[in-house]
Amino acid sequence: MHTVEYQFQINWGDTDAAGIVFYPNFYKWMDQASHHFFSVIGYPSSHLFVEEKIGLPLLEAQCKFYSPLFFDESVTIQTRIEEIKEKVFTLKHRFLREEQAVAEGYEIRAWAFLGGEKPKAHPIPEPIRQKMNDFKEFA
Amino acid sequence: MHTVEYQFQINWGDTDAAGIVFYPNFYKWMDQASHHFFSVIGYPSSHLFVEEKIGLPLLEAQCKFYSPLFFDESVTIQTRIEEIKEKVFTLKHRFLREEQAVAEGYEIRAWAFLGGEKPKAHPIPEPIRQKMNDFKEFA
Amino acid sequence: MHTVEYQFQINWGDTDAAGIVFYPNFYKWMDQASHHFFSVIGYPSSHLFVEEKIGLPLLEAQCKFYSPLFFDESVTIQTRIEEIKEKVFTLKHRFLREEQAVAEGYEIRAWAFLGGEKPKAHPIPEPIRQKMNDFKEFA
Amino acid sequence: MHTVEYQFQINWGDTDAAGIVFYPNFYKWMDQASHHFFSVIGYPSSHLFVEEKIGLPLLEAQCKFYSPLFFDESVTIQTRIEEIKEKVFTLKHRFLREEQAVAEGYEIRAWAFLGGEKPKAHPIPEPIRQKMNDFKEFA
Repeated sequence: MHTVEYQFQINWGDTDAAGIVFYPNFYKWMDQASHHFFSVIGYPSSHLFVEEKIGLPLLEAQCKFYSPLFFDESVTIQTRIEEIKEKVFTLKHRFLREEQAVAEGYEIRAWAFLGGEKPKAHPIPEPIRQKMNDFKEFA
Repeated sequence: MHTVEYQFQINWGDTDAAGIVFYPNFYKWMDQASHHFFSVIGYPSSHLFVEEKIGLPLLEAQCKFYSPLFFDESVTIQTRIEEIKEKVFTLKHRFLREEQAVAEGYEIRAWAFLGGEKPKAHPIPEPIRQKMNDFKEFA
Repeated sequence: MHTVEYQFQINWGDTDAAGIVFYPNFYKWMDQASHHFFSVIGYPSSHLFVEEKIGLPLLEAQCKFYSPLFFDESVTIQTRIEEIKEKVFTLKHRFLREEQAVAEGYEIRAWAFLGGEKPKAHPIPEPIRQKMNDFKEFA
Repeated sequence: MHTVEYQFQINWGDTDAAGIVFYPNFYKWMDQASHHFFSVIGYPSSHLFVEEKIGLPLLEAQCKFYSPLFFDESVTIQTRIEEIKEKVFTLKHRFLREEQAVAEGYEIRAWAFLGGEKPKAHPIPEPIRQKMNDFKEFA
């Protein structure tokens, strides 16, 4: 199984009055890991957005939280592709603090043209689909 | 069916370069709707936190996105209780723009004592459980 | 002296591990108060942005913090215009918790056309300038 | 002149509907650069907070914005100490995109004990003050 790894540190502003990470931040980091994933496979989303007005809007996202995260901890997200349909795909993200899985989530995203009034799903281009396939579970 | 309603407006800072709401904000609003829910039923989480060191950490959260939201739009979240176990409960949130459902999500939260080193689940006090029951589907 | 008032409540996610508001949020609220100001005087920024591609990018912003804010507190921002130049203007914001001033800040913003590659300052249209003048100190 | 450097990348969620960085994020990054500064000089704020209940609450912060930042750009913040009083100090932050200064700001912070009901300023410990002095302008 191939995964792309994204590393970050918990910032002071990510915590809340309970002293642990405020949970919506996990989705912010899944978003960052997804953009990182496309950079690593050679199709940075910044390029797709500026050159082709392509974005990756969300259809659904879920996260399960196993252990709270604290200020200054180092975290790695392992990202892989779970499913690729014609215009829609699913990314899986696993949050690790050292060896411990602290959270797991997924995002279902559309391949979408943003140049119109509202985002519109487009087929995922074949060369990108093939690259994504390298990061499918059990690929 | 009883629901508690939470209203808000999309702020400029909630949008991203695609011109629509950055998706982790939906979880921020679900969190706000949950705190609002407990205020409305007479147990504000600010009181629970300060007086009893009780918090409501997340075990799992999911959201499905049906339609993008834009700057300055007015949104209502309808919140109800879906399930109540001994120490854990599920809130359902429905995002409405006028009559249109634009997103739906849930949060599974623990009733937790935060005075120790890590959050620790406690049984939901009986009077609060009974109040929550009034907002269960088909109650 | 005329001011426009913007009211909000401190959300759980606005706090940090010290139990008080994470300071960059004060700027988020100044931004919201500025957008609210233009809505109240009849020129909502959402309309300016969609219809005319006009935005209000920042040149400078400062805030002084007098007293920490806590979860669930209610805050009012009083906003007024301090200065209006041809293409640039200054908003002053005063944060009040009940009668107590808890913070004060300003924002220097440009009237800018966002339809090009980078924001470009434009003269503030005369009718809007006149409306803004009603909210100038000692006006 | 000695400075500490903090590097980061503009994330998708940092942008707004104008396609540029939403300005309160600059303060978020100044906060991160300040925490990074204390890590680099050997006094990580996470340690100060957990072991000694010391935090660095803000008294004042300002930023001047020279050029908009865009998604995926790489930015370096150069941080130095501008002034050290008994219980209060000023950090200066310079944002660079390659060689170009895109923003400059400062933060005035207190050395504060957070174990009481409200933050309370304490004298900056002598060994830390001396370390900070190494990063004073023209030191």
